[in-house]
Amino acid sequence: MKLYDLPASPNARRVRIFIAEKGLEIPTVAVDMAKGENKQPDYLAKNSLGKMPMLQLDDGTCITESHAICRYLEETHPEPPLMGRGPVERAQVEMWNRRMELEILLPLINVFAHTHEMWKGVHTQVGEWGEVCRETALARLAWLDGEIAGRNFIVNDSYSVADITAQCALVMGKAVGVRVPENLSNINAWFAGVSARPTARA
Amino acid sequence: MKLYDLPASPNARRVRIFIAEKGLEIPTVAVDMAKGENKQPDYLAKNSLGKMPMLQLDDGTCITESHAICRYLEETHPEPPLMGRGPVERAQVEMWNRRMELEILLPLINVFAHTHEMWKGVHTQVGEWGEVCRETALARLAWLDGEIAGRNFIVNDSYSVADITAQCALVMGKAVGVRVPENLSNINAWFAGVSARPTARA
Repeated sequence: MKLYDLPASPNARRVRIFIAEKGLEIPTVAVDMAKGENKQPDYLAKNSLGKMPMLQLDDGTCITESHAICRYLEETHPEPPLMGRGPVERAQVEMWNRRMELEILLPLINVFAHTHEMWKGVHTQVGEWGEVCRETALARLAWLDGEIAGRNFIVNDSYSVADITAQCALVMGKAVGVRVPENLSNINAWFAGVSARPTARA
Repeated sequence: MKLYDLPASPNARRVRIFIAEKGLEIPTVAVDMAKGENKQPDYLAKNSLGKMPMLQLDDGTCITESHAICRYLEETHPEPPLMGRGPVERAQVEMWNRRMELEILLPLINVFAHTHEMWKGVHTQVGEWGEVCRETALARLAWLDGEIAGRNFIVNDSYSVADITAQCALVMGKAVGVRVPENLSNINAWFAGVSARPTARA
């Protein structure tokens, strides 16, 4: 196996942390998006959308989409479980992972994509949309703070892929100037905890 | 079990078709969003985001997020499999389901949310973003047409949750005036096929 990686990407980081939590060592190939390596024919032949991360299996099969890669690794390397134990908890982890992705990470990615000058001329930037997403992200952080009161992790009492997605979202948030307000003490305590794990810098 | 439903929602339709393909009968409770029923305390106590669909289990546990509901039903009612057979195919279904959701359904939902007058005053509409999403959806449809050449289904030779997400996206597209161009013959043939299934109107 090898992982086609985009070191600065929050989605690629999700997969790298997942791999590290499983105790796996998978060689990575950094794809240089600035040089357009992801739009070259050899990469597009593997992933026609030209996105990273991508896991290539030894038989050549290519799996893209962070959560699909994590699911493959969960099934082939079940311990420690990062997607829950049993059907109900697995559904809860899926639910919370999607909430973390769609309600928090995605708005923060949109802030970056629509307000950062790095993307000027690369795609159509809609600054007003970026600002709406900034407000959405802050509103959802306030919501999340209430939801995780009394919990050490996003779902029940175990670290899971939902924590990974949320912590990568917050790292992304720092990069675009959306910081967790000090009064959201539950999130700040949770984030200090997950950031102290040895895998957090994967 | 009971399903809290929003009849016109593409996400709720995804779950209803999934349930019908499994041959399950799960009672539904239609939540009237126009009357704000989803913002009432009793609903928010079940799902603090006030969204539909939501599956309530007999012990009271509430599962939200369409794909999390489908995953629970897949695990508890494995036949017929709608999420693939074996780790590689399950990863491919996950990958394609996410592509259908993030690349096609989500842009089409944004067209609706940001250009339709139904949402005026309900949330901040960014019309320019709606138009960008319309172009994105059309570009991704052209991409998908090439990807599924020679296939009857989105993933390999079996109907899966990825087909369900894609077909619900196209129904949504019709509602917002984004129709599949006639020259995209692979998508049009595929859509005719899935639309002819007895479950398509679930």
